[in-house]
Amino acid sequence: MPSQQLEVTTGQRRITDVTGACAAFAAAQAADGLLHVFLPHATAGLALLETGAGSDDDLAAHLDALLPRDDRWRHRHGSPGHGADHVLPALISPSLSVPVDAGQLALGTWQSIVVVDANVDNPIRTLRLSFLRA
Amino acid sequence: MPSQQLEVTTGQRRITDVTGACAAFAAAQAADGLLHVFLPHATAGLALLETGAGSDDDLAAHLDALLPRDDRWRHRHGSPGHGADHVLPALISPSLSVPVDAGQLALGTWQSIVVVDANVDNPIRTLRLSFLRA
Amino acid sequence: MPSQQLEVTTGQRRITDVTGACAAFAAAQAADGLLHVFLPHATAGLALLETGAGSDDDLAAHLDALLPRDDRWRHRHGSPGHGADHVLPALISPSLSVPVDAGQLALGTWQSIVVVDANVDNPIRTLRLSFLRA
Repeated sequence: MPSQQLEVTTGQRRITDVTGACAAFAAAQAADGLLHVFLPHATAGLALLETGAGSDDDLAAHLDALLPRDDRWRHRHGSPGHGADHVLPALISPSLSVPVDAGQLALGTWQSIVVVDANVDNPIRTLRLSFLRA
Repeated sequence: MPSQQLEVTTGQRRITDVTGACAAFAAAQAADGLLHVFLPHATAGLALLETGAGSDDDLAAHLDALLPRDDRWRHRHGSPGHGADHVLPALISPSLSVPVDAGQLALGTWQSIVVVDANVDNPIRTLRLSFLRA
Repeated sequence: MPSQQLEVTTGQRRITDVTGACAAFAAAQAADGLLHVFLPHATAGLALLETGAGSDDDLAAHLDALLPRDDRWRHRHGSPGHGADHVLPALISPSLSVPVDAGQLALGTWQSIVVVDANVDNPIRTLRLSFLRA
C-alpha cells in the first residue's frame, strides 16, 4: 500500500484546504483505487466541503455553537475552552476515504478535502495518505 | 476495483434509503470485502440509521436544531438558510464503508444506509459505490 | 480479507476504549494495510479521542446538549429520550478506518479508538474488525 506522510501548515486557520496534496499523491499512483486520508491528531478532523464561497468561514464559526469554548469541559489545559477541541474529532472524524479513477480524485465539482483544526496552538499538522489499489 | 455510479432520486426528502442499491451492488461482487459508499456532492452526507420507526424524521427535523436555517451563514444563494446545507457534510460525511461477507452487507439488524440531503433544490443525486475485494 | 467479530462490554459507560482489541487484531496481521472498524448497531458510533484526561466524560456529557434526551423524538421506546440514541450514528459514524504499519496502528500519541454508546440498555456490543492488506 503506497503511503505518504506530509506536514500541513494550518497556522491560525481553522480550515485548511489539502485537496492539492491529496490530488498529487493520487496522481502519483496513476491507478484506480481508494485514497484514505488520516490525521494522527486528537484535536482535528477532516471534511469534504466547498471552499472559497463562505462555507469554510461558516463551519469555523459554527464550531463555537456546536462546541462552545466555555468552562463546561473537564479537559482543561492550554487556551480557554480548549476542551472543546478534544471533542471535535468525535463529530468531524480524522479518517476519510475518496474514490480515485486512474489517479484522479473522484470528487464532486464543489468538494474540497479540508483539515478542520480548532486548536490554533498547533500550527503544523501531520497528514497521512494511503492508497488502496483496485 | 469494481465501481458503479447510480442516480438516486431524493426529491423533497431529506432522508433517502439506499440500502437496496448498495446490497445489489455488493451481491454482484459475490465476494468478501469492503463496500465504500461516496456522494460527490457538497450539500449531502451518508449515515447508517434505523429507518421506518421515526428516526429518519427525527434526524431530518434535528438538522434544523444543529444547523439552523437562518441568516447566520456567509454562504448565501438559493433557498433561505441554504448556507446550512453546505456545513452538513462536515458533520455527516459523504464517505462511508461497510464490511461485506460473500456479497452480503454485514449491516446490523436495524441499520440502513441513507443519503442525508438537506438541499431540496437538487432532487437527483449521484451515488458512487466501490468494492475492495479481500 | 482477515476479519474478526468481538463482543465489547460497554455496560453503563457511554465511552468504551477498544484500542487494545484493535491493536491486537492489527498485530496478528503483521502487515501494512488499513484497519476498518465497524459497529453493526443503530444506536452507537466510533470515534478517535484522547481518553483518560476528561474528554471521554466531556463527550459523554455533551451528547445531551447535541441530542437532548427529551420528548422531541418520534422514535419512542425504552428509556426516556431513547430517540436521541437513534440519531447519534448520523453524527458519530459506526464506520472508521486507521492506517496500519507492519501490524501497528498508526494512531497519533493521543488518539484512542472508542465506542460511543448512549444506549445503556444494551450493555454488550459487537465490534467488527477487517484488515485490508497493502
